[in-house]
Amino acid sequence: MKYLVTGGAGFIGSHIVDRLIKEKHLVTVYDNFSTGRELFIKHHLKNPNFKLIRADLNDLKLLTQSMKDVDFIFHIAAHADVKRGFSDHSIDHRENLEMTQNVLEAMYKNNIKKIAFSSTSSVYGDAKVHPTSEDHLLCPTSLYGATKAACEHYINAYASYYGMTSYIFRFASLLGERYTHGIIYDVLKKLKKNNKELILLSDGTPKKSSVYVLDGIDAMFTVIKKSKDQFNIYNIGHTQVLTINQIVDTIIKSAGYKKVKKKWLGKSSNWKGDNEFVLLSIKKLNKLSWKPKVTIELAIRKTVKYFKENQHLL
Amino acid sequence: MKYLVTGGAGFIGSHIVDRLIKEKHLVTVYDNFSTGRELFIKHHLKNPNFKLIRADLNDLKLLTQSMKDVDFIFHIAAHADVKRGFSDHSIDHRENLEMTQNVLEAMYKNNIKKIAFSSTSSVYGDAKVHPTSEDHLLCPTSLYGATKAACEHYINAYASYYGMTSYIFRFASLLGERYTHGIIYDVLKKLKKNNKELILLSDGTPKKSSVYVLDGIDAMFTVIKKSKDQFNIYNIGHTQVLTINQIVDTIIKSAGYKKVKKKWLGKSSNWKGDNEFVLLSIKKLNKLSWKPKVTIELAIRKTVKYFKENQHLL
Repeated sequence: MKYLVTGGAGFIGSHIVDRLIKEKHLVTVYDNFSTGRELFIKHHLKNPNFKLIRADLNDLKLLTQSMKDVDFIFHIAAHADVKRGFSDHSIDHRENLEMTQNVLEAMYKNNIKKIAFSSTSSVYGDAKVHPTSEDHLLCPTSLYGATKAACEHYINAYASYYGMTSYIFRFASLLGERYTHGIIYDVLKKLKKNNKELILLSDGTPKKSSVYVLDGIDAMFTVIKKSKDQFNIYNIGHTQVLTINQIVDTIIKSAGYKKVKKKWLGKSSNWKGDNEFVLLSIKKLNKLSWKPKVTIELAIRKTVKYFKENQHLL
Repeated sequence: MKYLVTGGAGFIGSHIVDRLIKEKHLVTVYDNFSTGRELFIKHHLKNPNFKLIRADLNDLKLLTQSMKDVDFIFHIAAHADVKRGFSDHSIDHRENLEMTQNVLEAMYKNNIKKIAFSSTSSVYGDAKVHPTSEDHLLCPTSLYGATKAACEHYINAYASYYGMTSYIFRFASLLGERYTHGIIYDVLKKLKKNNKELILLSDGTPKKSSVYVLDGIDAMFTVIKKSKDQFNIYNIGHTQVLTINQIVDTIIKSAGYKKVKKKWLGKSSNWKGDNEFVLLSIKKLNKLSWKPKVTIELAIRKTVKYFKENQHLL
């Protein structure tokens, strides 16, 4: 099969590429390297099954040409800085929704029938039920969450019009090798500058579920292989959930720092649109015999180890 | 209170305006008259509480100026031709979602804290449960449904960022005075040309719930008056549901035609993205002591009567 992975040089995308190449598929990575890194895909550059297109999804003509003879799209490219939508009301609309519409248009023109999409737990907003299942009301509290939910709907509308099969994955936070932004990155960067005092947003009580990236990738491939449905919406998360305080302690311990004084700025410092409790139900995935293999603590340790081995990423 | 009604010269919008004027509020109608009609608001033109702005939502500068000192926005303007999104993939995106984002930007700039929005049963797509409640999974099968769902999410993201209160109404089909497009219009127009043979899409079996427009308006005002929540999502529909065949027979009978031969083109003639069974749960509205007063048959008769009295609309 021939696959195209948008954002294929990024954190999640590059792991998907590894898996596809391992399974002997033909893979095109389409990435503008705004957050993607050559480091994450350079081991494939000489593989004849691998092709790299360094371009922006904004270029609909090139995107359409790039999809020639492709069977399956992994649309992973996104603007993933959830905080920024509060100060810039158009960035998520442009970079998430409009680029997704370009992907769908290019698929339509090439008569491609399968798409997998990386959505997010943020589509639920402040969920009223935890663990939150896929049929929970969508009430996003950020433009990031709103545009990701909008992408899901556009994908399903095109899928309905043109008989495509859609695989939508609502991810909890992903951790692991090639992780490049988020709380672990922020904490390690601060500790690198000052390992005595760590100044932190919030009060440490919010609870956030995460999942190890290779477990997450495995969940995607499990759904794609086992589900027979045309429209697929699956949470990908973990039964475990840690408080931010527990996450920070695990990072500090994993990184080998001692006597770090944590200073919490309090709840008023939370960024607008954040959700204080994220725990996704993974019962739907369990029915396909998938469950995460790696604990959240181990996923944090693996992430910290990756940064130790790749200091230049900090 | 001062209200601005986008699409205030349209079918639903003009009834909202009637209600607000009756309640002695100040009302600005913002309408580009693409489908709105002066006929629907001309009885207010001399009222000092009423102001008409003939403009497009695309004009963000004028829209922002028009919202000065406004307390509450009814955002009703929309591209409501569900069928067209299949042949034109950008019209719903542009006219529904982007115009809604303009409304939200103008509200943000004017620090306006309340918005009511006309959404649709189409956000559910082919619902798996009937009657369909508000927390049913959203899986729209048309770009109309997808963009309306996206509007809901953008509204709730802004509401979350800026402490706005949102009232989102997912309407079944509305019928009644000033109705200007949909099955009753189509059937009456065909019968006007040929009252012996009536050629119809589908096979008559799809079931569609409708509600009388003044019942629908009353539901909106009930929620706005009684709910204390920040985020409100309510279905507006009816416990009754008719097949398309029953709806057509009621139209023919109400219009006084006899011996009309119906010719169904069959299921293959259905337009892409249509949902064959629409029945919304109104239990959430029932809890606020609202229920529809008018049967669907009576709503159809009222609509047919309106066309008889306004032949030029056909």
